[in-house]
Amino acid sequence: MANPLILVTNDDGIVAPGIKALVNVAKQFGEVFVVAPDKPQSGKGHGITISDPIRIRKVDVFEGVTSYECSGTPVDCVKLAKTVLLKDREISLCLSGINHGSNSSINIIYSGTMSAAMEAHLEGIPSIGFSLLDYSFEADFSSASQHIAELLRFILHKQKLQGNYLLNVNIPAIPYEEIKGYKICRQADARWIEEYVEAIDPKGQQYFWLTGSFDHSDMEEGTDNYALSEGYISIVPSMYDLTDYKGIKRFKFLED
Amino acid sequence: MANPLILVTNDDGIVAPGIKALVNVAKQFGEVFVVAPDKPQSGKGHGITISDPIRIRKVDVFEGVTSYECSGTPVDCVKLAKTVLLKDREISLCLSGINHGSNSSINIIYSGTMSAAMEAHLEGIPSIGFSLLDYSFEADFSSASQHIAELLRFILHKQKLQGNYLLNVNIPAIPYEEIKGYKICRQADARWIEEYVEAIDPKGQQYFWLTGSFDHSDMEEGTDNYALSEGYISIVPSMYDLTDYKGIKRFKFLED
Repeated sequence: MANPLILVTNDDGIVAPGIKALVNVAKQFGEVFVVAPDKPQSGKGHGITISDPIRIRKVDVFEGVTSYECSGTPVDCVKLAKTVLLKDREISLCLSGINHGSNSSINIIYSGTMSAAMEAHLEGIPSIGFSLLDYSFEADFSSASQHIAELLRFILHKQKLQGNYLLNVNIPAIPYEEIKGYKICRQADARWIEEYVEAIDPKGQQYFWLTGSFDHSDMEEGTDNYALSEGYISIVPSMYDLTDYKGIKRFKFLED
Repeated sequence: MANPLILVTNDDGIVAPGIKALVNVAKQFGEVFVVAPDKPQSGKGHGITISDPIRIRKVDVFEGVTSYECSGTPVDCVKLAKTVLLKDREISLCLSGINHGSNSSINIIYSGTMSAAMEAHLEGIPSIGFSLLDYSFEADFSSASQHIAELLRFILHKQKLQGNYLLNVNIPAIPYEEIKGYKICRQADARWIEEYVEAIDPKGQQYFWLTGSFDHSDMEEGTDNYALSEGYISIVPSMYDLTDYKGIKRFKFLED
């Protein structure tokens, strides 16, 4: 396609630096159309808004790029883009991010960034979610942007990859030249060790606030967390079929 | 274990009829402890609350059962139960539901009911999510309750199943004797065809409201949707590894 239509979204909100960096890269590859949350939506997973109305509003955030902010979740943004705003057009690619912080390993199931990409993927649109391993607002997206541009050039222009796919791409927060390349990985079987800060609010009521640390127990070669620790960009081809096929055999006895 | 500790949660909220039915079944199998959302949380997927405090409150809803309502998502309920409320005890089983409405096929990724069960599963707790194919508040849970009791008796008492698992159980909304048995299935590759109701609010502002119909395109034998249409209870063994292992081979060229 001469000028493919690229949908860009994220979960940190339309005014986060990460999405601006991604829009600037995406512009090199086609016509960019942005629909992104009007506020941070980190950790919203595959949530959708079903019991409330959703608002969208045209905004002027990215130069020369049609952009809407949306009151819903990242998945709502993709659904509205496909069903309403771009209903008469073919979306060639969906890019989500650049997320501020890692979406490797188990983070994929909590991540609004990856859920948005997954929603587009299950609607038949090839999708890539990008995350930089730096949570801060001031994160330096320049190295990540260069690597994303190279990856897209390779996939879209050189390989002219066809068909549907969903990629979870995580990028170490190190200078451009220190990144060793790409590793195609499986999702590490690691998790969060939750803790809650327990405190009393100004009205004397108890509250809890989620915190915790990441358990890097699965650092086997071949995992995304291992690749990242070695200075590689991790790419996990992902899917929405949650069937545990080994489990089908294990539970077959119930049919008798 | 003589009297196993069973955590019960849901996504329709602690005052929904479905969770009352599930608590009544669970009581036959151990000590029940409830932590459930204080309001409907359908469609929240694997969302967690990270930018706001979470409140929990002890409530008197189920006779003889310690119960808390929680201001967060279904996944928050499970995290708080495990990390705070039951931190010194071993949870033997997590039951989520009974959901008002289907969680078959792709619904698993949007479902708060299944996400709560998945969260417990990834914390090492065997978990089962139950859904009845009837969305209404007045749904008749009596047939489903009987079948759930039988399933638990079979798994826990007769087979004494060990180890971790996650089951997505959907139950047709038909009388007890019309249900033909269990089918161990894969998740059907079906999806929602979204539509948005577009309207103007009393202040003259446009809003969108999500609706849509379910696309039953994948009715192959072996899928949950096929089993349900044939009058079986569908059981999909599920998991949180979203890696597309076939995709790893497909994208290996990027490493060169």
